Amino acid sequence: MDIVCLVFDGLTALDAVGPYEVLSRVPGATFTFAAVEGGTVRTDNGVIALVPSAAMADVGSVDVLVVPGGLGTRRLVEDRRVLEWVGDAHGTTTWTTSVCTGSLVLAAAGLLDGVEATTHWSERATLSAYGATVLAQRVVERGKIMTAAGVSAGIDMALTLAARLAGPDVAQAIQLGIEYDPEPPFDTGSPDKAPAAVVELVRRHLAPAQT
Amino acid sequence: MDIVCLVFDGLTALDAVGPYEVLSRVPGATFTFAAVEGGTVRTDNGVIALVPSAAMADVGSVDVLVVPGGLGTRRLVEDRRVLEWVGDAHGTTTWTTSVCTGSLVLAAAGLLDGVEATTHWSERATLSAYGATVLAQRVVERGKIMTAAGVSAGIDMALTLAARLAGPDVAQAIQLGIEYDPEPPFDTGSPDKAPAAVVELVRRHLAPAQT
Repeated sequence: MDIVCLVFDGLTALDAVGPYEVLSRVPGATFTFAAVEGGTVRTDNGVIALVPSAAMADVGSVDVLVVPGGLGTRRLVEDRRVLEWVGDAHGTTTWTTSVCTGSLVLAAAGLLDGVEATTHWSERATLSAYGATVLAQRVVERGKIMTAAGVSAGIDMALTLAARLAGPDVAQAIQLGIEYDPEPPFDTGSPDKAPAAVVELVRRHLAPAQT
Repeated sequence: MDIVCLVFDGLTALDAVGPYEVLSRVPGATFTFAAVEGGTVRTDNGVIALVPSAAMADVGSVDVLVVPGGLGTRRLVEDRRVLEWVGDAHGTTTWTTSVCTGSLVLAAAGLLDGVEATTHWSERATLSAYGATVLAQRVVERGKIMTAAGVSAGIDMALTLAARLAGPDVAQAIQLGIEYDPEPPFDTGSPDKAPAAVVELVRRHLAPAQT
């Protein structure tokens, strides 16, 4: 089973690494980071330089596609080569998935017209403008398309997907392997729960790379 | 504020990228991945090749040290240069932290003698053998040392640390920015909660890279 995660300059690292850490542990899976261009890609803030395993154009079979988010998606949604590649890959996948604003790329490729999907909370209107029906949910599964909310939601999505790919026992074992028994120190992980001042703080200042 | 995460061949990617995604968003922080050797490092399964920002020996000031885990720690705990560097860094840090089996490196450097700490659930006995007092907790904070349980626990640790570094409002905003409102599909993230068969499955087969 070939699992391919598209990587690009300006991606948010955890969007990609969360699903990677889960899905690379699925028995029989081969996990590949495929770059839009050849060569090293840099995360949104420039700190992480990742060497991809392949260039997008050189990838053969794609059984599971993962498209992470990040500021770099703003370029991807206008890059015809990327959108065509995503559309072509989707033609043969068993699962097409996204994390955070990766859903905007799926939408720009025409895969989410009238389809229920999710994205980072701050970009729901953008996804809706592409013609998707946006749900304020952490993971949305419709047919073979699975979309996740912002950044860390990729972990929950990937565990859900692991259960579809290899059964609940394997998914549960992977969850235990990465000791995913979350205890967030605050209950401010969604805009419905965070104080209005904190929501405003994020919108204005703190997380230029959250999308 | 200089936040330095030690990286090395055989690290578990999410151990490092979880704290990175949180702590790189702390206002005024500079986040550096420092490699034991110069050059690219590869994760436990070889899939991710990461280009570090610096070699360990070239890092100047360390205000916050993060030591992630992974199979590669088995070499680190026997590498005198690494242990001396960690010990020296600890001499000037305001916080010294670890994720997963990164705690074994802190322990091998002599920083956890008689200190309460945590690690990946499968390596509690190893940490105890180093002289630490092991707690089955997700995050343990004792003085300026903060240790996290396995892999994904680094996110919870880093948010706790962000609150210490920059106050709860900032930490809450970062949590919202990465939309960390976890909804694990199963309740099997710790060995106390997972069915015995799943615990056994992890121990035997599934997650050779979990430590």
